[in-house]
Amino acid sequence: MGIYLDNAATSFPKPENVLRAVYDFIKDEGATAGRGAYEKALNSDRCIYETRKLICNLFNHKNPSSVIFTSNVTEALNTAIRGILKENDHVITSSLEHNAVWRSLKTLERDKNISISTIPCTKEGYTCPSKIEKYIKENTSLIVFTHASNVLGTIQPIKEIGAIARKYKIPFLVDAAQTAGAYPIDIQNDNIDILAFTGHKSLLGPMGTGGFIINWDGNIKPLKAGGTGGDSSFEYQPDYLPNKFETGTPNVPGIVGLGEGIKFINKVGIENIIKKEKEIIDYALKKLEEVDDIVIYGPKNSEKIANVISFNIDGLVSEEIAYELDQEYNIMIRVGLHCAPTAHRVIGTEKIGTLRIGIGYFNEKSHIDMLVGALKDIAKKVRAY
Amino acid sequence: MGIYLDNAATSFPKPENVLRAVYDFIKDEGATAGRGAYEKALNSDRCIYETRKLICNLFNHKNPSSVIFTSNVTEALNTAIRGILKENDHVITSSLEHNAVWRSLKTLERDKNISISTIPCTKEGYTCPSKIEKYIKENTSLIVFTHASNVLGTIQPIKEIGAIARKYKIPFLVDAAQTAGAYPIDIQNDNIDILAFTGHKSLLGPMGTGGFIINWDGNIKPLKAGGTGGDSSFEYQPDYLPNKFETGTPNVPGIVGLGEGIKFINKVGIENIIKKEKEIIDYALKKLEEVDDIVIYGPKNSEKIANVISFNIDGLVSEEIAYELDQEYNIMIRVGLHCAPTAHRVIGTEKIGTLRIGIGYFNEKSHIDMLVGALKDIAKKVRAY
Repeated sequence: MGIYLDNAATSFPKPENVLRAVYDFIKDEGATAGRGAYEKALNSDRCIYETRKLICNLFNHKNPSSVIFTSNVTEALNTAIRGILKENDHVITSSLEHNAVWRSLKTLERDKNISISTIPCTKEGYTCPSKIEKYIKENTSLIVFTHASNVLGTIQPIKEIGAIARKYKIPFLVDAAQTAGAYPIDIQNDNIDILAFTGHKSLLGPMGTGGFIINWDGNIKPLKAGGTGGDSSFEYQPDYLPNKFETGTPNVPGIVGLGEGIKFINKVGIENIIKKEKEIIDYALKKLEEVDDIVIYGPKNSEKIANVISFNIDGLVSEEIAYELDQEYNIMIRVGLHCAPTAHRVIGTEKIGTLRIGIGYFNEKSHIDMLVGALKDIAKKVRAY
Repeated sequence: MGIYLDNAATSFPKPENVLRAVYDFIKDEGATAGRGAYEKALNSDRCIYETRKLICNLFNHKNPSSVIFTSNVTEALNTAIRGILKENDHVITSSLEHNAVWRSLKTLERDKNISISTIPCTKEGYTCPSKIEKYIKENTSLIVFTHASNVLGTIQPIKEIGAIARKYKIPFLVDAAQTAGAYPIDIQNDNIDILAFTGHKSLLGPMGTGGFIINWDGNIKPLKAGGTGGDSSFEYQPDYLPNKFETGTPNVPGIVGLGEGIKFINKVGIENIIKKEKEIIDYALKKLEEVDDIVIYGPKNSEKIANVISFNIDGLVSEEIAYELDQEYNIMIRVGLHCAPTAHRVIGTEKIGTLRIGIGYFNEKSHIDMLVGALKDIAKKVRAY
């Protein structure tokens, strides 16, 4: 089996009810949604609606129709960013964005002459909300922040940033790729206008799922147009939700699986999941210090980070360590820039990258013991060589 | 179980190896692709590459890297259309496009001032290729055609249209939603520059899959930007394939399932699949004529149509028939405009829609017998009422 410590990329394993539901749906149901009037097709609609409701409940949102499914969180972020920002607009963002946000913004800077203000953060990746206000301009049309850096894990003060965005009536988009299902999010209380989430990380659904929740009245232009199963004779994408953004046949088995992932979370209790994960994170932060010359990045406190820890071992090549961990110890962790070069600039690792562990509900402290033991062995071996 | 005759929406059932592979992948593999260096992640890469190769073989394409996966064929068509057409460009298309093409073009007409020429077709939906040349202008930047109408089934003379496109060096985009896996397609011989396909219809894969094959040197601007697992420090979407168009975590289990769908097709032999489906189509065309006052649209010859037949029964409301078929006979067929109002204008059914059957490999002639028997009963009952 091996020890899987890359849950920040995708969670593994998935709960049994998730895979069973995907299998059963494809086997026994299998009809498209929104397109047929027969029972089987209506049942697909119901399954999707049920997942929308589960997502609403999890994030304290009221209207299931404004839960939009996309193929992944990257598509969700692209849709929101490109759908809101117009020629010559100004956008405010963090110094720690994943490329899903960063490359989207850079593309619009090049193609639509938007301007980008990047808010500086501490060495640990924390953005002080008081710094934001002075960057707001007449043409600031969007504030987009990662909820937690996928490199440093650092949780951002979303609620405070959201309050500033509300004060200036600027839409606030939050990238919850690393936090949805692993950290409490209350879309109302946290002042979030658009929450982008992935389905296959801490929400425990299958890959191919994600989306965004719209808690805002402004207009987002859809990225795509096509069949929506209704109002077919209208020649443009319809303007009502969720059809405005959901076009073509959806990934119904994936969405069914995502619903089951959330049901699993609800059954165990999200507070119990968070508690367990935080205990392992704190244990890992302490235990990793036993490795000679280790450099751990970000805040060393589970309360301040999502379930990722980035580190390097001084004098050792991280790719080599990751390779050894996999080949000799069957321990899977990530290495490199993790698609977020901006965050590496903050900690000065843009050339070397980091090793990164991502903790999930199915990890145990013993996994950390094995990882740390292996790291010590590898370091010793490489240094002796 | 019921009788499923809506294979033009999505194929059902799926072969056992498809669902088994999706289940096994989520259960045992489950890692993201292009993002980890450990064996499990590399295996995801290999699985995706294998599906790319299977698609290449099926359509006689050489380069697996230019097989791009998207969440559905609608996304594939949007990517190609919006990625090619620029401000003030001219596009040529058929009179039978699905909304995935039609709404995309109308949106660009409104937002980017493109102009659209729609080539007239016969009452049976056939476009004579000789009509196209006179519509070509200096600024014609794209010819986009459905391979087969999803309403009438009518197969278009793709190869001949492609030859005209080649002569004028205009990229030729083919929407193979209804034909990929159900009709022979040779991307080289058929002069296709970009082939958009869906994974969950006749390719027998799960919903959430689709894509396009690029057989053209020109530039297509990507619709999205984000993480691609490599070259992370580059601030724009990379320009090489497939990463240029594949961003964020892909639907790996779906793509694995799609590969299995194609393996099933290869095992049975695509010629055997087509032969069986055409026999049922011809049988249905003949048998449906037994129903009093039936109006069948499109060419009444399996050689000229994909696996769909649209019809109405004079004096009866099609929604009512579809409802009765489902509720009383457990027979599932589609009713309405099928997301393609343009095609309904050709046959004059834009107000009333049609009933539509879509035949798949797992249908049998007995299903047609049961459908026709039920249609006769329902017509009798409704008329007596």
